[in-house]
Formats: sequence, structure tokens, C-alpha cells
Amino acid sequence: MRKTRRELINKYLEELRTIKREINEPKKRFITSIPYKYTLSNGRVLPREQMLKNGISGSAVMVAPYIEETKEFLVVMEPRVFTKLGVAISFPAGYIEEGETPEEAALRELREETGYVAGKLIHLDSFYQDEGVSEAYNHSFLALDVEKKFDQELDENEIIKYMTLTYDELLELDQEGIISGANTKLTLSKIRNYIKEE
Amino acid sequence: MRKTRRELINKYLEELRTIKREINEPKKRFITSIPYKYTLSNGRVLPREQMLKNGISGSAVMVAPYIEETKEFLVVMEPRVFTKLGVAISFPAGYIEEGETPEEAALRELREETGYVAGKLIHLDSFYQDEGVSEAYNHSFLALDVEKKFDQELDENEIIKYMTLTYDELLELDQEGIISGANTKLTLSKIRNYIKEE
Repeated sequence: MRKTRRELINKYLEELRTIKREINEPKKRFITSIPYKYTLSNGRVLPREQMLKNGISGSAVMVAPYIEETKEFLVVMEPRVFTKLGVAISFPAGYIEEGETPEEAALRELREETGYVAGKLIHLDSFYQDEGVSEAYNHSFLALDVEKKFDQELDENEIIKYMTLTYDELLELDQEGIISGANTKLTLSKIRNYIKEE
Repeated sequence: MRKTRRELINKYLEELRTIKREINEPKKRFITSIPYKYTLSNGRVLPREQMLKNGISGSAVMVAPYIEETKEFLVVMEPRVFTKLGVAISFPAGYIEEGETPEEAALRELREETGYVAGKLIHLDSFYQDEGVSEAYNHSFLALDVEKKFDQELDENEIIKYMTLTYDELLELDQEGIISGANTKLTLSKIRNYIKEE
């Protein structure tokens, strides 16, 4: 790992760590559920509960932007308060909004989280986030022809730092556990295929 | 894909598909949430909601049992009512119970879901299922020295079929989308490493 990157990561780890947690009282819950009973073709009846995020399935996109000139990937680092470190590195990602295609969501999230645009998206894989309790069906992309064009455009409750890392640095952070989410790890495993084909 | 396996998968697809869905009225919800506000070291305050399953984090294990003699993996097929197919193939998996280590949970789930025991577990990876909303931290294992010793031992609301498939058949089902969950896909990507090392 390059010293500059290690120092940057350590700075963000310190800056974004949790120092206090209190119970909140939101007007509306983000996580809700609907209890169903399903009858199967073989006659069995199963209770199953569907988890919703903000009232919908919560399907998401993740986009791994590859900067061909420097052979680096663009990643984001943000507070992940439910993890042991409190912070995680991932690829830019977010929920698909109503009326959006996965590709449109990927380009929007990339632009909002980093200010980068992409000329080309390559579909890597699609998968259920947590198929026992949710319809959320996520899509991973590799982005090429990426270029910094805009400022970040974050929601009020988002804190997102971004940086560029080589493929080997990503593997190192995966081993260390700073890359810790299933989506990012799966996307990373698909990038390997792509890099090997080149 | 071997014809016998394709026929078996098609039989289960038909048998396990959903024919009716109704709203249920459980005494207690499986999915609940706790709303928090977190204060970070940099002074920012973020609302974040934690999803719980049955009142706890819902950390899970997944175990890919490899039958060395036939070079096949043992997989399970079960109703996954929130997916498009309504059914999915995965490796044996389940939630870690109170007081259990991940290894103990992996061996227990393998035995309950298939009646197989394993002589050896190799840790493949650990990852957060959905790190924005949950503490669930999952562990994947490869199981060796596996042997059928018991009958299946299923909960009242579980329907689980099991079968053996080659690595290439697993890749085919991954492409087709019958293997569709993030956990299974990630575990499958880690098995590849192992097989290549042999």
C-alpha cells in the first residue's frame, strides 16, 4: 500500500469513527416489514416476512470506476456505523430510484458521490442482497472512460470521501477488513475476471 | 449440466413455486429496527437505523461441502419467495445461534439441512450482509471429509432439497440466475481460488 493512501485512510478512520450513539425518534421508520404467508405448488404454506427500505424493495447498484491511465479504481470511504471499524471502503453505490434503470442509477450515484462521469458501463453481475427477507436485487458495473467533471453532491445525511486505489491495494484492504461488505467483495471478485481477460 | 440434475432442478422448481400469497398476522415480527443517531469524531450527527432479525443481528454462516471422491459440491434448493424464480440454489446456510461459534453453526446447519457431517472446515471469507443497515457479519466455509450420516432435521417452516453438483454446473446455475444470492455467489468466487490452488 502506498504511504499516501495509508495515511489518508487512517485520517478518515479517525475522522469518521463513532464517539456516541443515542436512540433517535424519527417521524417515519426507514426499515419496515410486511408479513405474508405463501402457498406453494406442493400445498405447503410458509410464513415469510419481507423487509422494506423506505417503503420499497431497496434494490441498489454498485459501480467500480476504472481509471485506465493510472490503472486505479475510484473508491469511496464512509461511516458504516454497524461495522466493527465504524467505517468501510466500497465502490460508489446507492439505491435505484423510481423510474430509473440500473445503468442510470449507477451513473447518478457515481456523479453524486464523487463528481466523476463515465463513458461506458460494463455489467458485472446481479444478485439478491438478502434473499430470505428481501426483494432487493442489486447490479454491479465496471465503469470505463471515467473523468472528474463535477463537485460531489451529497444528501444531508451522507459523508463520503473518495480516493483512487490500485487493484492490489483493494485486495490488501479486503484482507484487512476495511473492505467488508458483501456487495463490494462480490464486485471485486468480478473485476478480477475482467482484469485477467485484458 | 447432467440431464439427471436438470430434471431434478426442474422438478423442484415446479414443486416449490408460489401459487398464492396472503397477508399474515404473526404474533411477533421477525424483522424489526432500532433508530439511532450517531455522533462521529468530526462532530457530524447521522441518523441510522439498524435492522434486526428475530431481535438480534442475524449473523449467518454458509458452508460449501466438497465431496472429494466425486469432485462435487453439496447444495440446497429451497423456496425463496422474494426472488423472481421463487426458488434458489445455495450452499447450506443459516443463522448463528446464541453461544455458537461460526464453525459450530456451520457444522450444525450442514447436518440439519442435509444430514451430512464434515471432518474439516476451511474459512473462506467473512463479510457484512448489508452494512448500511445491519450488524449481520457472515462467515463462509469450505467443508471437507463430508459424509452422509443423519437424516435431515428441518424446522417446521423450512423446505430444503439437497443435491450434488460439479463446480461447472454451479457456474452454469450462477449464470442462469438459479444461484442468485450475494452470499452464495461470494462463496462460489472463493471456492474458485481453492480449486485453482489444488
